Amino acid sequence: MLNLSAEVINIGDELLAGHTVNGNAAWISRRLRSAGIPVTRHLVIPDEKEAIVRALGNVHKETKYVFITGGLGPTGDDRTKAVITSWFGDRLVFMPEVYEKIRDFFRARGRTPSPANREQAWQPEHAELIPNARGTASGMIFRKAGKHYYVMPGVPYEMQTMMSEYILPRLQRTTGIRDLELQINTFGIPESELSDNILKHYPGIEKDIILGFYPSLRGITLRLHGTEKAPVRDYHGKLQELLGDAVYSLEGESMASCVVKVCREQHLTLATAESCTGGRIADMITDIPGASHVFREGYVVYSNEAKGRLPGVDPAVIREHGAVSRECVEALARGVREISAADIGVAVSGIAGPSGGSPEKPVGTVWIAVWYGEQMHTRQLSYDRGRRNNKEYAANSALNEVRLVLHGSRR
Amino acid sequence: MLNLSAEVINIGDELLAGHTVNGNAAWISRRLRSAGIPVTRHLVIPDEKEAIVRALGNVHKETKYVFITGGLGPTGDDRTKAVITSWFGDRLVFMPEVYEKIRDFFRARGRTPSPANREQAWQPEHAELIPNARGTASGMIFRKAGKHYYVMPGVPYEMQTMMSEYILPRLQRTTGIRDLELQINTFGIPESELSDNILKHYPGIEKDIILGFYPSLRGITLRLHGTEKAPVRDYHGKLQELLGDAVYSLEGESMASCVVKVCREQHLTLATAESCTGGRIADMITDIPGASHVFREGYVVYSNEAKGRLPGVDPAVIREHGAVSRECVEALARGVREISAADIGVAVSGIAGPSGGSPEKPVGTVWIAVWYGEQMHTRQLSYDRGRRNNKEYAANSALNEVRLVLHGSRR
Repeated sequence: MLNLSAEVINIGDELLAGHTVNGNAAWISRRLRSAGIPVTRHLVIPDEKEAIVRALGNVHKETKYVFITGGLGPTGDDRTKAVITSWFGDRLVFMPEVYEKIRDFFRARGRTPSPANREQAWQPEHAELIPNARGTASGMIFRKAGKHYYVMPGVPYEMQTMMSEYILPRLQRTTGIRDLELQINTFGIPESELSDNILKHYPGIEKDIILGFYPSLRGITLRLHGTEKAPVRDYHGKLQELLGDAVYSLEGESMASCVVKVCREQHLTLATAESCTGGRIADMITDIPGASHVFREGYVVYSNEAKGRLPGVDPAVIREHGAVSRECVEALARGVREISAADIGVAVSGIAGPSGGSPEKPVGTVWIAVWYGEQMHTRQLSYDRGRRNNKEYAANSALNEVRLVLHGSRR
Repeated sequence: MLNLSAEVINIGDELLAGHTVNGNAAWISRRLRSAGIPVTRHLVIPDEKEAIVRALGNVHKETKYVFITGGLGPTGDDRTKAVITSWFGDRLVFMPEVYEKIRDFFRARGRTPSPANREQAWQPEHAELIPNARGTASGMIFRKAGKHYYVMPGVPYEMQTMMSEYILPRLQRTTGIRDLELQINTFGIPESELSDNILKHYPGIEKDIILGFYPSLRGITLRLHGTEKAPVRDYHGKLQELLGDAVYSLEGESMASCVVKVCREQHLTLATAESCTGGRIADMITDIPGASHVFREGYVVYSNEAKGRLPGVDPAVIREHGAVSRECVEALARGVREISAADIGVAVSGIAGPSGGSPEKPVGTVWIAVWYGEQMHTRQLSYDRGRRNNKEYAANSALNEVRLVLHGSRR
C-alpha cells in the first residue's frame, strides 16, 4: 500500500568521496515537506550500474515518490540515464526537438554544442521529459507500479528550477494534507537563554507541538510543528510576544532582506563603511532583489589610508584609539553618510583573525556603529569563531543593529 | 566476502526534514577515504525503531565498516542506543565509571547532571565504549559477523573528535593501501569542452585511473584517483600541461586565495570598484588571511552617482553607453586605481537580475575590466544562473581575469 511519502536518491562519487556536501537532499526534503510529503530516507550511491540498479530495486514498497539526482551531465562518467532508462524497460532515442533546444541554449551564449552535448538529446522514448531552463540535461519522469520517479541533474540550480517550476506545483495540487510548520527567526539571544526563557513561561507545551532550535551565524531559528493547526498557531503567537525584539522574521528571510524591506517601507537609504567585514554587508544587501532602491554605495575601508579618505575621519583618531574602536567606527559611520547623502550610515571595524589580536583587543573584537537621524548607536562584539565566521556574524550583527534602530528599539 | 569499504548511516529527523545539511556524512567519507577506506553508500533514516532495524539489516553483505551517527543525546526523542544495543543481542547496564565521567564533565563547567544526563551512563554491556572528550554521550563499537559498527553522536565536533582521536588512528594502522587522489582546479572552460579536449588527447587513460569532473561557480575541478601512484601522478602532470592557463590551483584553493598569493609574490596591491557583484569580490579577497598586504580598499558603486564619485568617471559615458558597458567598467577600473594608488584596478558592472534586463543586455550580462600597468583587459560574460549565482560567478571571473593578467596570459 503506497503512502504519500518520498525517498531521495543522490547519485554521485563526489558525495561519497565527501568532496561535496549533500545540499540537494536537504533542499528537496524541505520543499517536499512544505508540500505535505514527508521524506523517509536519503540514499547516496556511486555512479555505477550495479549500485543504481540495487537502489532502484530497494525503494521501500510503501514509498510513492522517488527523487533521483545526479549523473545526467554531458561527461563520460555519467551513466545514470542509460541505466535508469533500461531499468524501466525503456530505450534511448535521439530527439531532434531536444537537440534543437540544446542548440538554442548554446546559441544564446554565442557557443555551439560539443559532441558530448549532442549525446544529451538521446532521451528515453516513453518517459515524460522535464525541460531544463538553466542547462542542457533534461529531467525525466518514470512511472511504475503506482510509484513516480523524478530524475534530475545534480547541479543545484538546474535541479531547483525543475522542482520549483515543474514538479512542486503539480505535487501541491495532488496533496491536501499538510503538517503545519511555523518558524521564528531570532538574533542576539544565546540558545540556552532562549530555551530557559521559553521553558520558564511554557513548561508543558511540548506535549502537542514539536519545538526545535536551529542555531547558525544568522541567529537562532525556532521551528514549531504539529498536525493540529490551531495550537501551533497559538503557541507561535505566544513565543513571538515573549521574544519581542529578538524576532526578525517569521518566514526565514535573511537579515539583509528584512533591513531592505524596512528601509523601502520607510523610504530610507543606507551606505556602508566596512573594515573587517570586507564588503560582506554590502554583498548581503545586494543579494536582495530591489536592493538598489535602498543601497547606493559602500566603502571597503580595509587600510587606514582608505578610512581617512572618508570625510571627517581624522587620522589622529585612528592613531589615538586604534582602527578597532568606538571612536573610529563612529567617525566612519558619520563619514559614509556624509559622502553618500544616505539616511543611514553603517560602519564596522574589528579583528577577524587569525592574527592581529592583542590581550586588550583579542581576535573577534568588533565595533559596530549606526548613524541615523541625530543618533549614534554602537555595539561591541567579542567572540572568535574563525575568520570567515567572524565576518559573517559581524555583518549580520550590523544589519540587526540597523533593524533595531529603525524599529525604535535602540535609542 | 568482506572488503575494506564502509557505509555511513545518519539517524536524524532534522536531516530528513531538510533543516540540517548532512555535513557528517561528507566529513566521515573524506577522512575514511584518506585512510584507504572508500565509502560506498550514505543512508539517512528517521530516529525510529523500525527504520533503524531495517537499515542495520540492509547493510551490504560485502561492507566491512559501518559508521552510524545520531540519536545518542540526552533528550527523549533519541532511541538509537536502546534499539541498536538490542539488535546486537546486548543489553544496557548502568555503568558507574561512565557516570563519574559525566559528572566530571559537568563539574568542570560548574554544573550538575540532569536526570536525562544520568540516563547516558546506561551502556551496552559487551560493546567497546568510545570516550567522548567533548560531550556526555559515549560512542560504541559493536562487532558482528566480521563487520565493525561504530556508533557516534550526531553533534559534529563530538563525532569528529571521536573519529580523529580514537577511530581513525586504528583504521590507518589496519589498512596498508592508500588510494592516491590528485586534483586540478580549472576556470573558464565549459565542462563539455574540457572533457572533449581530454578525450581527444588521452582517449584510453581511464582504464587505470578514475577521472571525475566537478563543476561549480568556482570553475570545474578534475579529480583523478587510483591505487597505483605513478600513473596517477603522470596523468596529473599531462592534464595540467594540456589545460594550461585554465588551471588555477592543484590544491583546491579559492580563486581569491590564488590572486592574493600571486599579488604578494609580485608585491602588488589591488583595489576594486564593484557594481553588480555588490562587494562580493572584496568579501572573497578579505576571507584570505593576510589579504591586507594586497587589498587596501574597495568601492561598491551600486548607483550611477556612486560611480561618478570615482575620479575620471564621466557621467556622460554612463549616459551614452549605459552602466553595463565596456566603456563604463574601463573608466571604473582606471578611477579606482587612481584614487587608491593600487597597482591593479578591477571593475565589474552587470545585470544580476531577476529584473533589469533588456533584449540587448539580458540578465546575466556582465562587463569586467582589469587595469594593470598600461594595459586594459576586458571581458564580457553572458549567462544567467540566478541573482546570487550571477554575482558569485562574476566575482570569480573577475578574480580569474586578474590571475590571467598577472600570469601574462592576457595581453
